[in-house]
Amino acid sequence: MTIKTLNDLFRRTLQDVLYAEHQTLKALPALARRATLSDLKTAMTQQKAETEKRIHRLEAAFQALKMKPTPHDSAAIDGILKEADTLAHEITDTDTRDAALLAAMQEVEHYGITRYGTLHAWATQLGLKDLTISLKDNLLASKEVDRAFSTMAQASVNRLAAA
Amino acid sequence: MTIKTLNDLFRRTLQDVLYAEHQTLKALPALARRATLSDLKTAMTQQKAETEKRIHRLEAAFQALKMKPTPHDSAAIDGILKEADTLAHEITDTDTRDAALLAAMQEVEHYGITRYGTLHAWATQLGLKDLTISLKDNLLASKEVDRAFSTMAQASVNRLAAA
Repeated sequence: MTIKTLNDLFRRTLQDVLYAEHQTLKALPALARRATLSDLKTAMTQQKAETEKRIHRLEAAFQALKMKPTPHDSAAIDGILKEADTLAHEITDTDTRDAALLAAMQEVEHYGITRYGTLHAWATQLGLKDLTISLKDNLLASKEVDRAFSTMAQASVNRLAAA
Repeated sequence: MTIKTLNDLFRRTLQDVLYAEHQTLKALPALARRATLSDLKTAMTQQKAETEKRIHRLEAAFQALKMKPTPHDSAAIDGILKEADTLAHEITDTDTRDAALLAAMQEVEHYGITRYGTLHAWATQLGLKDLTISLKDNLLASKEVDRAFSTMAQASVNRLAAA
């Protein structure tokens, strides 16, 4: 796929983000198993459900564009997920590992926030009205999951790790 | 370095972020040369100056912790910067390339936002008062640079790319 226009770039970025969501979905169960605090495990299970919803919205976007939902490799998300896994295995204390896992999940969500923010701006510029709604939904969902993790960090996870 | 406590994790993450800022500083001149719109070139030059300031604040944080400011490789930022470079070479249209570069720079800043947010929360939990100030400064600076890019995207870059 050659990228010449903003339309091409928009489509390629949709494919990058689809890849990121798929990789996150694949990585989450093993990462959640490394978590100890049950609230964190639950939050990561909810995050998995949110990731599935985001993938469904992306698939609908591809359908609206009459494109096959083919993911395109993206090194950024691979790096984030690989680091999370390496760190989880490296840390010997369970509370500290929880703090690291939570922070890594916020990295994943922030990747979503910036990419969906960009995709939403491009869809608006390109006049792709139907797509702006689902991209905005994915953006808001990423922000919401990130916010929930921040609240949990402050309320319990960081305190337990520092104890 | 073994990671057992939140203190260890905090120090390691400081090293990760130092690496990310150094890699960004190294990558920015070549990426800015690929930009066409003079406003975007200027913004990327300012971003480089902001990156330098963030590195200085990090170095002061290491000094306060009596640690050598040794960067620790981080795959996430490598992925973001590599993708930006690849995409910039792949896109044939200059206005579209500008839109891609601007979005990639927002990915860089969002990586900063999530990492400095985490580091600030951990420093607060650990009672490292002097460090919370400089980490908050770096967090706010990342948010400000991201916001400036969003404004520019909406005001000119995306419109030019869609024309």
